[in-house]
Amino acid sequence: MSGPVFSSIAIVGIGLIGGSIARAARETGAAGEVRLFDASADVRAKATTLDLGTVFDSAAEAVAEADCVFLCVPSGAIGKAAEAVGPALQQGAILTDVASVKAEVAAAMQAHAPEGVHVIPGHPIAGTEQSGPDAGFASLFQRAWHILCPLEDQGDAYNAAVDRLALFWQMLGAEVERMPLARHDRVLAITSHLPHLIAYNIVSTAYDMESVDEGEVVKYSAGGFRDFTRIAASDPTMWRDVFLNNREAVLECLGRFSEDLAALQRAIRHGDGDLLFREFTRARGIRKAILDAGLDSAKVNFGRDRRPPDGGE
Amino acid sequence: MSGPVFSSIAIVGIGLIGGSIARAARETGAAGEVRLFDASADVRAKATTLDLGTVFDSAAEAVAEADCVFLCVPSGAIGKAAEAVGPALQQGAILTDVASVKAEVAAAMQAHAPEGVHVIPGHPIAGTEQSGPDAGFASLFQRAWHILCPLEDQGDAYNAAVDRLALFWQMLGAEVERMPLARHDRVLAITSHLPHLIAYNIVSTAYDMESVDEGEVVKYSAGGFRDFTRIAASDPTMWRDVFLNNREAVLECLGRFSEDLAALQRAIRHGDGDLLFREFTRARGIRKAILDAGLDSAKVNFGRDRRPPDGGE
Repeated sequence: MSGPVFSSIAIVGIGLIGGSIARAARETGAAGEVRLFDASADVRAKATTLDLGTVFDSAAEAVAEADCVFLCVPSGAIGKAAEAVGPALQQGAILTDVASVKAEVAAAMQAHAPEGVHVIPGHPIAGTEQSGPDAGFASLFQRAWHILCPLEDQGDAYNAAVDRLALFWQMLGAEVERMPLARHDRVLAITSHLPHLIAYNIVSTAYDMESVDEGEVVKYSAGGFRDFTRIAASDPTMWRDVFLNNREAVLECLGRFSEDLAALQRAIRHGDGDLLFREFTRARGIRKAILDAGLDSAKVNFGRDRRPPDGGE
Repeated sequence: MSGPVFSSIAIVGIGLIGGSIARAARETGAAGEVRLFDASADVRAKATTLDLGTVFDSAAEAVAEADCVFLCVPSGAIGKAAEAVGPALQQGAILTDVASVKAEVAAAMQAHAPEGVHVIPGHPIAGTEQSGPDAGFASLFQRAWHILCPLEDQGDAYNAAVDRLALFWQMLGAEVERMPLARHDRVLAITSHLPHLIAYNIVSTAYDMESVDEGEVVKYSAGGFRDFTRIAASDPTMWRDVFLNNREAVLECLGRFSEDLAALQRAIRHGDGDLLFREFTRARGIRKAILDAGLDSAKVNFGRDRRPPDGGE
């Protein structure tokens, strides 16, 4: 095991992801010191009780001596968090984040980062439907992708900083990928944002069926519905911000989804079994590709697939 | 353990469900003899190799001496299967099925069942995304709901037959519920049929995105998309028939789903974060209800939640 990548890191926002980074950084030795801040006094108290690191009463104090600062707040709060920490950041420090949308978040961080601070947007493809500091666990990032979206033409010092940040995530067990901001937002719109929107929507639709009561929906949810309720249990604030901050890409996917759904609806109405069979058969292929890629549940960090050691299925 | 509920059962259609009933019936002793038929010679050969029971070369032979006949074919093939076995059914025998839609399937069975045969439509809320005789396993039905939709005003002999069939499913480990045909089809349209249609659709949409290649969709599927691909891997023939045979209820749910989705789309376009937050928060409630009801993964038989003993996650 090599020494710490950063002698000191600061985490602003102690939720599922922030709390997991704190745990993983200490457990793997990827960081020497872990400094923490959360806007909520209750969460700060909880983080102290959980002994996640050194908890400070202001974001500025927390980041003051950190080599790398992780903004682990919802994407809509990144600007405010960056503004709070900006003046206190050390020269040569890294300012990164873990938000699910990158273009708008990168702009918000750049707007408040002083000259000489390296802004490196990032996104761990890991999580569960739980939230809050006690939902975090050290193994959350193991064998999960971590996407870094380095800014362009930043020079050698910046590129060296990106390599260090990549090494940090690798020590936490993640597989690091690099991708342009806009591409990240397009890819995640279809692989994550649209699925969550659809899941939230079908749960709402089920709620509002007069002809079926909620008890029945719950009781027979094993028929497929339950799979949607799990991701629909994700943090509402975080997801509201995702859709507001990745609007164009999400609306593009949503438009296509609705067109495709209208075609299936028409096929059902007109009894076009051939079209239905063709579409359903096609869908099998991509599932097979996921299994072939070794991305089946046990190997990927998301939702049911990862649980805190004590909460395993 | 009590004695067999039926001295002899016949299973027509040896897929995931038929194969699982055969295994479970012998393992639990719920049936004395298990007689099998499948329209495919390959499947019959496979069933013989797997030693699932006595395999016959015609449906009529298979059902000739059975007290209870299980039609385990896709709902669109029930009529043909019922027609094939009808003349060979014993007086007082039970003719049941396991299809996901009930009203049309019940009518098809009634059309071909001779006087004195008890038609009792049924539906086990259990399965995996696998299909075929080797996909079956004896514990598939344990702690799963089995819905029986008895016909009305059939008299005492019929009611006694329903009780026997319920007892059989209980011996296989299922919890038996009774519900009218139309209600079953309405409830399952929202808890199972619509979720599957949505899952198939989102996979198709992802396939057709020019801006994102399939490799990326697969690679980053842990962000939520993968959950949809699992149910979208279900048997295309079975699901084509479900949508063709439960058209009205599915179209009703689908219309509401599309309206609700349009409202979310509009909120995203116009930046209405309050509406999004409200809807997303609401969705958490039903997930909690499912967990509170003890219906979380480990306790319910569907997809990832149940695996053959050798194939556990």
